[in-house]
Amino acid sequence: MEDYVIRPIAHIRTDLPEKFGVPRQAGIVEALEGRIVFEPEYRREEALRGIEGFSHIWLIWQFSKALREDWSPTVRPPRLGGNVRMGVFATRSPFRPNALGLSCVRLLGVETDPELGPVLRVAGADLVDGTPIFDIKPYVPYADCRPEAASGFAPDPGATLSVVYAPGTQERIPPEKRPALTGVLANDPRPRYQEDAARVYGLDFAGKNVKFTVDGETLTVIEVE
Amino acid sequence: MEDYVIRPIAHIRTDLPEKFGVPRQAGIVEALEGRIVFEPEYRREEALRGIEGFSHIWLIWQFSKALREDWSPTVRPPRLGGNVRMGVFATRSPFRPNALGLSCVRLLGVETDPELGPVLRVAGADLVDGTPIFDIKPYVPYADCRPEAASGFAPDPGATLSVVYAPGTQERIPPEKRPALTGVLANDPRPRYQEDAARVYGLDFAGKNVKFTVDGETLTVIEVE
Repeated sequence: MEDYVIRPIAHIRTDLPEKFGVPRQAGIVEALEGRIVFEPEYRREEALRGIEGFSHIWLIWQFSKALREDWSPTVRPPRLGGNVRMGVFATRSPFRPNALGLSCVRLLGVETDPELGPVLRVAGADLVDGTPIFDIKPYVPYADCRPEAASGFAPDPGATLSVVYAPGTQERIPPEKRPALTGVLANDPRPRYQEDAARVYGLDFAGKNVKFTVDGETLTVIEVE
Repeated sequence: MEDYVIRPIAHIRTDLPEKFGVPRQAGIVEALEGRIVFEPEYRREEALRGIEGFSHIWLIWQFSKALREDWSPTVRPPRLGGNVRMGVFATRSPFRPNALGLSCVRLLGVETDPELGPVLRVAGADLVDGTPIFDIKPYVPYADCRPEAASGFAPDPGATLSVVYAPGTQERIPPEKRPALTGVLANDPRPRYQEDAARVYGLDFAGKNVKFTVDGETLTVIEVE
């Protein structure tokens, strides 16, 4: 068999420790910041020389929360309500023969951490905290940007929920993290369009548990623990 | 160590059996067609259901002609004349810790081959014939298209060479393959801007060996064997 071994060069740190709440694609919640921490072997400033000339970078990563032994030729994209089966290669589903993810994120900058070496600060990631990253490449518009591309069943995500914070809840989130939380919630983290206004959901975000309900187009944060 | 095993789902067939002549990025030579042939386990039409709604797809693949045991934190991009060292993660160089390639290609269609099963016809690939492919994903403009992206030291490739065919040479290339050959040559396959008008280069293309010289901005095909 023609097997190849790949090894993480880095892991990303984000405020979302579980799949629940992670945006369905990169770039949807720009306020969500992440930090890419290299493995010791790759903590080399030279390896990043010139990267700050690029505003966006690609991450190729492992769907580490979606590992399955088997693969299924079809999946049910949440975008289609979860009832229609599409070919796995016609989707960005995590359940694929090689569980590789691909995300274009904005590069905010390169920081040098005394312990961790060079760390990339990025915005708009759709990765769970701790996700292994196999490769980082610059986004090159003349090759990667195809404004004329037809997008099948996955048009712009469009409408979002209104997010309301019950009194006293927003104050429990650090101010610099509020836009990211609001962005995550506005994009409706519920699985497959559940419609139960009484149901209380719990989102783990930045070390807090954020409890909310959704009624129609309005999401209300009722508690932050 | 945190190793992952990945296995090709397919291989691409193109008219370029060697690295020499392969465009430096996807989409540069649109006339270059390729066929993606799935491995027996993945020859399932359901796995492609819906893919024809997308005009472009991503390929994640192995730089199979560029395997090295070691990695170097810096590389010398041909775009910069081959003399300037850049960080490997600031380039699309094949010589990277995990030798993964990433290409956006145009999807021309899905054919069914009686022996090979469903085959994807694509345009604009920058892959050597026989390259292993690990994943195929739809190109989703709202997540993947960033027209505002700044592109560092890799702006649009821009100017190309004029291609002239010496009498009798063009006729040796099948008519449907001539635009692709002209496109490959116009993009200057020479390594690192060699300037020697007397030097004869040989390009393997579609089973022929194409001999050419370059003088200034003009490339002349002198023989096709």
